[in-house]
Amino acid sequence: MGISHEELQLAARNHGMPLEALRWDVTPIGLHYLLTHYDIPSVDERAWRLSVDGLVGSAQSFSLDDLRALPGHEVVSTMECAGNGRARLTPRPVSQPWLQEAVGTGRWRGVRLRDVLERAAPADGAVEVLFTGLDRGVEGGEHQAYQRSLPLAVAQDGDVLLAYELNGAPLPPQHGFPLRLLVPGWYGMTNVKWLAAITLVDAPFGGYQQTQGYRFRITEDDEGVPIRLMLPRALMLPPGVPEFMTRARTLEAGTHALEGRAWSGQAAIDAVEVSVDGGAKWAAAALEPERLGRWAWRHWTYRWAAAPGEYELACRARDAAGNVQPLAPEWNVGGYANNAVQRISVGVV
Amino acid sequence: MGISHEELQLAARNHGMPLEALRWDVTPIGLHYLLTHYDIPSVDERAWRLSVDGLVGSAQSFSLDDLRALPGHEVVSTMECAGNGRARLTPRPVSQPWLQEAVGTGRWRGVRLRDVLERAAPADGAVEVLFTGLDRGVEGGEHQAYQRSLPLAVAQDGDVLLAYELNGAPLPPQHGFPLRLLVPGWYGMTNVKWLAAITLVDAPFGGYQQTQGYRFRITEDDEGVPIRLMLPRALMLPPGVPEFMTRARTLEAGTHALEGRAWSGQAAIDAVEVSVDGGAKWAAAALEPERLGRWAWRHWTYRWAAAPGEYELACRARDAAGNVQPLAPEWNVGGYANNAVQRISVGVV
Repeated sequence: MGISHEELQLAARNHGMPLEALRWDVTPIGLHYLLTHYDIPSVDERAWRLSVDGLVGSAQSFSLDDLRALPGHEVVSTMECAGNGRARLTPRPVSQPWLQEAVGTGRWRGVRLRDVLERAAPADGAVEVLFTGLDRGVEGGEHQAYQRSLPLAVAQDGDVLLAYELNGAPLPPQHGFPLRLLVPGWYGMTNVKWLAAITLVDAPFGGYQQTQGYRFRITEDDEGVPIRLMLPRALMLPPGVPEFMTRARTLEAGTHALEGRAWSGQAAIDAVEVSVDGGAKWAAAALEPERLGRWAWRHWTYRWAAAPGEYELACRARDAAGNVQPLAPEWNVGGYANNAVQRISVGVV
Repeated sequence: MGISHEELQLAARNHGMPLEALRWDVTPIGLHYLLTHYDIPSVDERAWRLSVDGLVGSAQSFSLDDLRALPGHEVVSTMECAGNGRARLTPRPVSQPWLQEAVGTGRWRGVRLRDVLERAAPADGAVEVLFTGLDRGVEGGEHQAYQRSLPLAVAQDGDVLLAYELNGAPLPPQHGFPLRLLVPGWYGMTNVKWLAAITLVDAPFGGYQQTQGYRFRITEDDEGVPIRLMLPRALMLPPGVPEFMTRARTLEAGTHALEGRAWSGQAAIDAVEVSVDGGAKWAAAALEPERLGRWAWRHWTYRWAAAPGEYELACRARDAAGNVQPLAPEWNVGGYANNAVQRISVGVV
């Protein structure tokens, strides 16, 4: 495979969710996937302020206490890195080399973004909301703060949060302390961490993270299409026990409840199917009701009577918009959104 | 460099500490390095018991509440993976490919192991204490539970804990919930997670993790020497800002306080030195007093008047036993304990 030194540097500091953590509805702190473009900044909560300005009637500045005094809202939301699956593409686009584990589900609490925007009174002509983080670095040759924008209508959705808590505690530093954006259903890069400024603007944002990064491109000179909502994906909790180095799985013969989670940002999950023969035959998994709200992954199970032998397990999700996971990866320049089905080799003894 | 698919699988699920986290005395949950040999087990706290038996006068079984009712003890302890630095060896031993970030410092709280051993009354003839975790897998061709032992005298040290808290909260699942061993000064593999059984035995433990794994060997057929206490290491918080992909650092000209941490399990840290020219000249860093106890890393600083140009920064620690970090890696079969000095390329503009 030949992962480079630069990719390894990223893989050693960022991390995926070990797939056995699929057992939890809400991912414990430290197991949720984490991708940090630059460095995790150090933020003094007492000095920190969130500014809201640009095309507004009334520019605002909030302390964390100011935000906590506004009505709170909680969303359980599954977040996936747009680059998840990148390292399974051939040739492999060079960046953070995720296999399929760049996901996690958080119980996020904060204030609705629309409540904050209302106080600032967006002016006529404002079309986008630009979010600026405190994290700074170089990308594509440009010194920059991490910035992303949302169309005003998306920003006004009632589940879009300025989140100050994760799983009932203040945000950990690595997840954006003291405040981050949380846009359920969108890929991870949308959810700007270490938020410092919100700016109402009169034209689509032309910065690096939207015009260069995070676009589907088939060729380098392709303008591309922006990456936004998560495509459907099902993941299976690898059954049995692993070999340390190869992660090869061994399972005792008998009936086992295979289980996992499935999500899509595009529409609700409609069905999950399982194959135990590498994708030749598929059977429906039992999909649990939506217990955690629209934006969280759904738990699924599948009873498997496993006789001794070698198997390739696979699972795939379909959403209500008709999106299905492909059996093989679909290549693109940036290595984004490869939601090809997961495959797990298991020896049953 | 050519990292393999198997190494990448490990790198994607395990994770190092992003080096900017050197700014914190105690590493926030989720930033401490993490290595899981097999899978993180699911433990039902109500059903869980710790057994203490073998060569004892009075076999014991403890619930978590039983242990919490015993006198508590807290230790701030720096923990480093024995494989830290492995990926900087040539040829590279194939296992978890750490560069230099497999470290973290925790505020661990629990009961002293010796208090628990006293209740069980070790019998004459007991020479070692064997620790068995709930994590199971295959390694070296053997199905096994993760097991390691300690000489009885080490186990009776007053800072050796059965820890049930990290940083003031119950252990996270990935750090061994509900109980783990904590042996300050020893490399990470010693600190058995998801602890289920403690067994007093009359002979040195001959299991995989001590007779096959975690030994210094210069050739494959070498019997080797067990890896135990951490060698000294200093790490520097990378100054300036990074480029996303290459992690190349850019810093503005001027006077900067370089900073980092240093630790050794062998003896107290005696000195830290810094070089800004790749190791040709060294100067003493200012070493903070031991504020967090003997087992925690020590903070150090170094004022650097940086003129524009290209630099290779380096740092090295020496401990009171006279151990110093080598300038170049020293190879061994398993890729253990490579504490060669850290080097950071910085462009000053």
